[in-house]
Amino acid sequence: MLTNDVLDQWDRENFFHPSTHLAQHARGESASRIISGAKDCHIEDRNGNRVLDGFAGLYCVNAGYGRREITDAIAKQASELSYYHAYAGHGTEASITLAKMVMDRAPAHMSKVYFGLGGSDANETNIKLLWYYNNILGRPEKKKVISRWRGYHGSGLMTGSLTGLSLFHAKFDLPLDGVLHTVAPDFFRRENLEQSEAEFVAYCVEHLEEMIALEGADTIAAFIGEPVLGTGGIVPPPEGYWAAIQAVLQKHDIALIADEVVTGFGRLGSMFGSDHYDLKPDFITIAKGLTSAYAPLSGSIVSDKVWKVLEQGADENGVMGHGWTYAAHPIGAAAGVANLQLIEDLDLIGNARDVGAYLNQQMRAAVGDHPHVGDVRGEGMLCAVELVKDREGRKFYDPADKIGVQVVAALLSSGVIGRAMPQGDIIGFAPPFCLTRAEADEIVEKTKAAIHQVLGA
Amino acid sequence: MLTNDVLDQWDRENFFHPSTHLAQHARGESASRIISGAKDCHIEDRNGNRVLDGFAGLYCVNAGYGRREITDAIAKQASELSYYHAYAGHGTEASITLAKMVMDRAPAHMSKVYFGLGGSDANETNIKLLWYYNNILGRPEKKKVISRWRGYHGSGLMTGSLTGLSLFHAKFDLPLDGVLHTVAPDFFRRENLEQSEAEFVAYCVEHLEEMIALEGADTIAAFIGEPVLGTGGIVPPPEGYWAAIQAVLQKHDIALIADEVVTGFGRLGSMFGSDHYDLKPDFITIAKGLTSAYAPLSGSIVSDKVWKVLEQGADENGVMGHGWTYAAHPIGAAAGVANLQLIEDLDLIGNARDVGAYLNQQMRAAVGDHPHVGDVRGEGMLCAVELVKDREGRKFYDPADKIGVQVVAALLSSGVIGRAMPQGDIIGFAPPFCLTRAEADEIVEKTKAAIHQVLGA
Repeated sequence: MLTNDVLDQWDRENFFHPSTHLAQHARGESASRIISGAKDCHIEDRNGNRVLDGFAGLYCVNAGYGRREITDAIAKQASELSYYHAYAGHGTEASITLAKMVMDRAPAHMSKVYFGLGGSDANETNIKLLWYYNNILGRPEKKKVISRWRGYHGSGLMTGSLTGLSLFHAKFDLPLDGVLHTVAPDFFRRENLEQSEAEFVAYCVEHLEEMIALEGADTIAAFIGEPVLGTGGIVPPPEGYWAAIQAVLQKHDIALIADEVVTGFGRLGSMFGSDHYDLKPDFITIAKGLTSAYAPLSGSIVSDKVWKVLEQGADENGVMGHGWTYAAHPIGAAAGVANLQLIEDLDLIGNARDVGAYLNQQMRAAVGDHPHVGDVRGEGMLCAVELVKDREGRKFYDPADKIGVQVVAALLSSGVIGRAMPQGDIIGFAPPFCLTRAEADEIVEKTKAAIHQVLGA
Repeated sequence: MLTNDVLDQWDRENFFHPSTHLAQHARGESASRIISGAKDCHIEDRNGNRVLDGFAGLYCVNAGYGRREITDAIAKQASELSYYHAYAGHGTEASITLAKMVMDRAPAHMSKVYFGLGGSDANETNIKLLWYYNNILGRPEKKKVISRWRGYHGSGLMTGSLTGLSLFHAKFDLPLDGVLHTVAPDFFRRENLEQSEAEFVAYCVEHLEEMIALEGADTIAAFIGEPVLGTGGIVPPPEGYWAAIQAVLQKHDIALIADEVVTGFGRLGSMFGSDHYDLKPDFITIAKGLTSAYAPLSGSIVSDKVWKVLEQGADENGVMGHGWTYAAHPIGAAAGVANLQLIEDLDLIGNARDVGAYLNQQMRAAVGDHPHVGDVRGEGMLCAVELVKDREGRKFYDPADKIGVQVVAALLSSGVIGRAMPQGDIIGFAPPFCLTRAEADEIVEKTKAAIHQVLGA
């Protein structure tokens, strides 16, 4: 068996990690952690440390770790047929069954699902389809996309442009032309503290209307948004936000892309965030919860309205030049079928709703009054604690102080994973749906202790 | 068990296939095929049809189908740990081991590997890193990328722009600004039939030099190319091409991205196409052969020179904002380790070289003199037959006649899969590396028969 020392050396010499300080990692100045096993809500590393994963990987292992129903399905599919492509009308029992299961669960006005690999490529597909759609409709100027600051839609060139976080733009020449960012729907962080929630929503609408007027509605193809801001800080929308935004979009014939990579398949305690907030999207992006991350698979779900235009495009132009070799990969499809079935059989969405509500309620009770906690918020099995320098004047810490990172490190030392969200001092939680109340209590108690340790009682 | 009729209905109602005439498929006007199993070089569908797969899926199942060594590794990894992310220095034994195995096999001047999911996202990563690299070096204007007509580098917005095939541009508003296309290194299709191979190479170099002079070398970041053109028609480079091109790039300090998605890990009978043609790339793109498609995994390999600048960037700017949730996915990593080990243990690259040479030699002997065969070419386990209307005057068919598609359909009826490449009437073969001489004979005989059937003897 390979020793940890050998693996550590190989790691630092050869492995270019994502979202890592790569110089410190290569020089051995930052921790590496080799994960060796996991069960339900706990992961274990090769040094024997076992911790409660309050973020479900990257809010993706929704069903919990070590589910035999899913791993057996992967093993069975691998032994029967590990791979064949899905080009030119090819499929497998697994990919066809999963397409059926996805569409049975999606909002009723949606038509078909294109399977990719991860959320970024699914959003890339959506933008390609969107441009194609407007070309077929004879609207070649209608191509710009409006996203929101603090939105997260991937880290490719286009998808990182859609993302509204500076970490994903700086030094990469992003955003690309044609991507615009409007106000983040974050009431807590509103610039004008005098605004009520309703006034803030009106301000978001006004800003969007001004942007559309300035650019011209005939140049704007779509608005993309997560039902609940995810990586931007786990921020549920202000009351009335989506209804008001959708009215604007409808008025200007601007398509809505609902990025449900985080919220799809139960994270909010509902099957889709679109149902939860009464959205009527033209495209829905899915990934993480589709397979609970047991194998890579994503999807772009298109509406009946979009599909009809795509059919017209095919009749006029033939085969669509868009495909990934691993689109609808049999292993991912088999994992997806088993995962969605398991989530239904165990009513894991019901548990996400109930235990998620409990987690949020207990977190608010435990740290909501702390002088350095500005906001405790969540929806379904999502919860965030936003730290502030001064609660009364809502003053934020200097990012250089890395307060959020310090709290998360203290929390990890006590055996719980939370995530320091990339912008602001926000501690995020997105546990597996199978979280128990006792585990929710553990997250809450240890978060309270970590905040006290770093910031005082 | 689900009947084929039920699956067919679900398929047409719900499944948006890649690279498919989606209107015909949805209306049930084109064939669907549900693949149920595969072994070595054969695949089988749910109707019991068993055919010899002369294209190894999409030239990706290099090790052959149904390899227990790989499927057992997938099953074992799934049961131990299906997922954990690789952000912030996290790894698994499989991902670290695979990074080591990849770098042991890569050209000596390469440094580290970033793991993605498919070839498109790996090229997307390369362009992101390239722009970052030139920003860190203080060359913010040096960002354009030169690709070749008939190159294939993916089907995203940027990667589809790099691709030099009209099918991937039309109606998608591609290529994006900043992507330029130079002459396809296709001697057979040269415009000026008077040119010798050496003169054609000089012409390619001249065109490239002119493009660089026109744009300004300080605006051009990179040149991307497949060692052998793949989807553009399986075209080995003319003699002396890569040496001459690399001299130009070096003179102007333009990075080379070698897209080895098809050629990496043995397709040419060498570990990498870069070794095969003596390339010294700054970036190497890998995917298909990394796992033989048993699970999705790709990679961007960066050189020592690039890595040093990335380290400088991290020291100046901190954590790099680039990551996919499924980067270095444990299932893909385990498949990659088992696959590369199996390829070594069975000397499958040696077989690709030997049987590939035999396939090309027999194909040339069988159809090379046919009046409608213009060219038979290949390298390693790649072989292509290019059909022409008139051999003497090298006249091509009208694309509307779909001659290539007809020949491939006739071939499939006889039990062999070849691929009608998307531009030109080119029948491509890229069988698994474990192809036997008897199977090579079968491909050759049936290709000859299919050509005779469609075009006469």
